[in-house]
Amino acid sequence: MKIINKVLRLKKRPIGFPDEDTWELSEEILPSLNEGEILIENNYISLDPAMRGWMNETRSYIEPVKIGDVMRAGSIGKVIESNNPKFSEGDVVSGGSGVQQYSINDGVGFFKIYPGKLDLPVFIGTLGMPGMTAYFGILEVGKIKGCKVVGIAGGKEKCDYVVNELGFDGCIDYKNESVKRGIKKECPNGIDVYFDNVGGDILDSALIFINKYARIVVCGAISQYNKTSAKGPDNYLSLLFNRGTMTGMVVFDYVKKYPIAVEEMSNWILEGKLKSKEDIYDGIENFYEIFKKLFNGDKKGKLILKVN
Amino acid sequence: MKIINKVLRLKKRPIGFPDEDTWELSEEILPSLNEGEILIENNYISLDPAMRGWMNETRSYIEPVKIGDVMRAGSIGKVIESNNPKFSEGDVVSGGSGVQQYSINDGVGFFKIYPGKLDLPVFIGTLGMPGMTAYFGILEVGKIKGCKVVGIAGGKEKCDYVVNELGFDGCIDYKNESVKRGIKKECPNGIDVYFDNVGGDILDSALIFINKYARIVVCGAISQYNKTSAKGPDNYLSLLFNRGTMTGMVVFDYVKKYPIAVEEMSNWILEGKLKSKEDIYDGIENFYEIFKKLFNGDKKGKLILKVN
Repeated sequence: MKIINKVLRLKKRPIGFPDEDTWELSEEILPSLNEGEILIENNYISLDPAMRGWMNETRSYIEPVKIGDVMRAGSIGKVIESNNPKFSEGDVVSGGSGVQQYSINDGVGFFKIYPGKLDLPVFIGTLGMPGMTAYFGILEVGKIKGCKVVGIAGGKEKCDYVVNELGFDGCIDYKNESVKRGIKKECPNGIDVYFDNVGGDILDSALIFINKYARIVVCGAISQYNKTSAKGPDNYLSLLFNRGTMTGMVVFDYVKKYPIAVEEMSNWILEGKLKSKEDIYDGIENFYEIFKKLFNGDKKGKLILKVN
Repeated sequence: MKIINKVLRLKKRPIGFPDEDTWELSEEILPSLNEGEILIENNYISLDPAMRGWMNETRSYIEPVKIGDVMRAGSIGKVIESNNPKFSEGDVVSGGSGVQQYSINDGVGFFKIYPGKLDLPVFIGTLGMPGMTAYFGILEVGKIKGCKVVGIAGGKEKCDYVVNELGFDGCIDYKNESVKRGIKKECPNGIDVYFDNVGGDILDSALIFINKYARIVVCGAISQYNKTSAKGPDNYLSLLFNRGTMTGMVVFDYVKKYPIAVEEMSNWILEGKLKSKEDIYDGIENFYEIFKKLFNGDKKGKLILKVN
């Protein structure tokens, strides 16, 4: 039986914001399995801001995606054929299959998932890379639990959602208010831990209000990813005055501890203490349209693409 | 006996690089001592880049010098009269007398010095604030000993001095070569610890070459002090890729441990392992001319002003 696989490959390196022509979708016939390989039917593909960085040809925490390679992406799927003793037909596995409907690989970097009462997409959202990032970023790099938590989101609807549904203590609407004024209001005692995914002006605003010995987790800088030259935090000397620390983190460093985090967060979800929200779209053909939502704010939950 | 004290007071807040009119030198008659006070005849005043920051009216690690106040400065001098049981006439003391020939105070923040075989100026240089900053910055924040050490200095003469006299493993001449190229050449295995006193382009160059888990000690940013708006390190995302840390330090936090450092570094000096170099100028009237040397590079050792 011949299987046709729809595959999205990187066609060129984007400069600034990627245009649609950055990738090429092709239909390819799957080869047969070699010894040690597994065939996975991918159900869901994870769309993450980090994808933008993976396309740059610059020194980073991970090899750039090569021109012609399958676009890198986290995935969840089912093993439909196995020549590898570690996996059996029917196993649900999570890993990095890339943006394609099927993948053949040696199983390295893939692990089995036992969803129980939880929906599959949760395992590439709250229990996947983004959730692991939050868990280890806050608990290992920020080193804190039990703090007052203030979010930053764009628009009243998202802010209401963050406070009323997710249970944050407050939320700053960066699209409609000055972030500085927002921090002053929501954090009258200053900031002890700032988890930075955005960089730019918001990081600079947070730096103004950090407390003594504050920890800034540098996890990402979505405001800078599509700029041809990034801008640093002009207020970084606040670290000096406040003996603050700014530490970079890459979630893959914690991969051995993922099972602990998955177990703990699964329980939090089942107990209703942690809310998981996914925005799921259908069809690998729609990749580019959904990819754009990563950067234009047109989303509320974790962006996921259903490809099979 | 009436003593005339020459005192340098802050007259106005500078914008950008301070002009001579920023301070005013006056002659003032010393009052008599109250209970608990000591009278110090200041011998040497320390000139430090940090002085520039102390004049700004912005949130910092220390109160700004108020308009009309004696300009803040580290000092070394002799107690010539004491109404304080902790000090006796003839004690040599170090502290923050400010830029004046004499000072009257309650002794808080002053400590006695036993110079032994070492010259007095060493105690506001290598065994004073700058030396303490280097010691605790490297050993407590950078957390390293025994590393290969590369300096950055302006001009061939200084670089030769750094390598041949001070014993550094290498030195980059930032005035005559690209710092990036210099780092590539001198640090072919990358940077594990970068001690930053300058900020700006040099910090950005260092960020490019940091190794995994590198520590950057943010101690100062002399390239930015006289700018009306500071510029942040555009390459700060290298912290993310490399799981690096950037930590602010203020030497005053280690004041209780100074004696340990002074003892250890005194021994290093006496054993010839550590070189101390001071540029000593004479006369409080020359303050401004010497102050400028902090920023224009016209110095090789610690800048010290002899005021008595």
